[in-house]
Amino acid sequence: MSLVSNTSTGEVVVLVGHPSTTSRTGAVGQAVAAQLADEFGPNPRVVELGELGTGPLGEGSVAVHEAEELVRHAELLVVAAPVFKAGYPGILKLFLDRLEPTALESVVAVPVVLTASSAHGALADLQLRLVLQAVGALLPVPSFVLEEHHLDDLPQYVDAWQGRFGTAVGAVVRALNAEQAYAR
Amino acid sequence: MSLVSNTSTGEVVVLVGHPSTTSRTGAVGQAVAAQLADEFGPNPRVVELGELGTGPLGEGSVAVHEAEELVRHAELLVVAAPVFKAGYPGILKLFLDRLEPTALESVVAVPVVLTASSAHGALADLQLRLVLQAVGALLPVPSFVLEEHHLDDLPQYVDAWQGRFGTAVGAVVRALNAEQAYAR
Amino acid sequence: MSLVSNTSTGEVVVLVGHPSTTSRTGAVGQAVAAQLADEFGPNPRVVELGELGTGPLGEGSVAVHEAEELVRHAELLVVAAPVFKAGYPGILKLFLDRLEPTALESVVAVPVVLTASSAHGALADLQLRLVLQAVGALLPVPSFVLEEHHLDDLPQYVDAWQGRFGTAVGAVVRALNAEQAYAR
Amino acid sequence: MSLVSNTSTGEVVVLVGHPSTTSRTGAVGQAVAAQLADEFGPNPRVVELGELGTGPLGEGSVAVHEAEELVRHAELLVVAAPVFKAGYPGILKLFLDRLEPTALESVVAVPVVLTASSAHGALADLQLRLVLQAVGALLPVPSFVLEEHHLDDLPQYVDAWQGRFGTAVGAVVRALNAEQAYAR
Repeated sequence: MSLVSNTSTGEVVVLVGHPSTTSRTGAVGQAVAAQLADEFGPNPRVVELGELGTGPLGEGSVAVHEAEELVRHAELLVVAAPVFKAGYPGILKLFLDRLEPTALESVVAVPVVLTASSAHGALADLQLRLVLQAVGALLPVPSFVLEEHHLDDLPQYVDAWQGRFGTAVGAVVRALNAEQAYAR
Repeated sequence: MSLVSNTSTGEVVVLVGHPSTTSRTGAVGQAVAAQLADEFGPNPRVVELGELGTGPLGEGSVAVHEAEELVRHAELLVVAAPVFKAGYPGILKLFLDRLEPTALESVVAVPVVLTASSAHGALADLQLRLVLQAVGALLPVPSFVLEEHHLDDLPQYVDAWQGRFGTAVGAVVRALNAEQAYAR
Repeated sequence: MSLVSNTSTGEVVVLVGHPSTTSRTGAVGQAVAAQLADEFGPNPRVVELGELGTGPLGEGSVAVHEAEELVRHAELLVVAAPVFKAGYPGILKLFLDRLEPTALESVVAVPVVLTASSAHGALADLQLRLVLQAVGALLPVPSFVLEEHHLDDLPQYVDAWQGRFGTAVGAVVRALNAEQAYAR
Repeated sequence: MSLVSNTSTGEVVVLVGHPSTTSRTGAVGQAVAAQLADEFGPNPRVVELGELGTGPLGEGSVAVHEAEELVRHAELLVVAAPVFKAGYPGILKLFLDRLEPTALESVVAVPVVLTASSAHGALADLQLRLVLQAVGALLPVPSFVLEEHHLDDLPQYVDAWQGRFGTAVGAVVRALNAEQAYAR
């Protein structure tokens, strides 16, 4: 399946909500996932919505359903989005609109926002968190919001974010796993 | 051109941000536009994004460009949206993402939101206003937000909203028109 | 009454929502009001909440009631606020909490936000607009949001904002006045 | 110190952001804390801002500083607020305005919102989360938002919320504790 970038059995999924499949946004999302590798393993799966296309995302297709299954079964979902018109892109909302309100109830989500304007980045982040909560995801820590002019220092920013919030993310993922194991 | 529902020379455009072309949302948007007919004339044009489709809205097409031109040159733009996942639909964001940040600078916009949940309606309205402001529209009055269980009493609700806010909407549209005439 | 800075018969009120009575926020609010002088006359009244104090604002006092009357009868209310903790200050909310949900139904409000962080400025503005709408005010145009490092160029920023939005503000104020005159 | 309701050594603090010291809001906040007793022990401390008063909260006082210390050193902070004017009360913002941006960096916060209107409850919750994040608190799970007409069924609602989110709250509190122990 082409939209899965590797064959890892890891449970981290990076959902790239950008119409281009070669976006800097996607790179930032993968950098955040890589930083969490100690906790979750080194090989996240990547779902590029730009590869699926807005037609299939509106209508549904086999590839879209496969992407939904990947996202739904993630332990940790990194949702990476650029800022378009003070919000996250329509292509990402198109994908999330298809999900049930409880679809991500067992998923811990970390939003990643890349923005030119810090004002618009704050507003887009607020909206991205609202929609992820509306499909049931748990968002235990603040999003990783990066201004584009800091891209050259991406490693330091990711490192600082992980140092501050990585423990909490890991704790929630493990707690949900244990709870679900108990429920089985 | 099929997506324009009539040949009126009126300057009111109803933009229906719903994937279906026969939505109740569209009907509510048209009811709000009709209520403003005394002010703006009886024949609004209607752009149904469901008729354009998410593929063309992502990629661009002749019909999409025509819809953009209609919206850009509206005096009054009624933007009608249902609530999907505590926000407005992805198909509407897809359309707005294509516009320039100043595209609607001469447009007065009135959001219309139809919702099952009043909590989600409030959050969707907040987000819809943010994106319309981000493409330059002026939003002089509170949105018309209707809960679905009030649909049977739509006329009374539209009438109350118009009685409270119709004057302000008309005043801003006329003021912008006069300003633009002066600038020519 | 000491909190009214002059004896103008003008109907513009600047409400300064800052605990200090000598804030830069207040100065920015007055600059916006002065820029609208052609439209509304040169002598706005100024209500400094810092002069009233948080004790009386919580409990009520003669001076607080006088301030409420001034604000309630403004034609145009400029609400100036700094950003504290990604929001507008508690002292301002204390004042607004006392008002009825319809208290400002005949008032056109223009929020003015002075901020060190543009991200927090955007979030504070969003919240300030929500509360002003919840007491019935009409907010026909985007707020004047200024980053502190632009204070030296305040006149240019105010001028640009007024050039873009002054006409709409004036049109709504006049329309509401005419409507109320008709209703009498 | 009168505002501390008992002498428990437990680390749960309920911060009641209501001007009255006998509010239903406070009762709901304490019910949420009680539900988490298995995890955190049965005797939360309670800080009633209404007991402190808006004068001292604006100016500072010994009692206010003691309340700040309690909140700052909580492991789990339940922040209970009613909805005033589509937001949380000014008295609560007055208290939070005094804190440093990092004051609650080791605190896990759970907002509790009691509302008559579900639309305004959603908006108040959004704003309460923004301010708590701006003082550094971690908010790992969705708030407990209750509509007043459900007060008679409070136990079921609290139970359902705890069943869904209690594990995640506990996991984050323990993870932060372990991290801080390691840092010492």
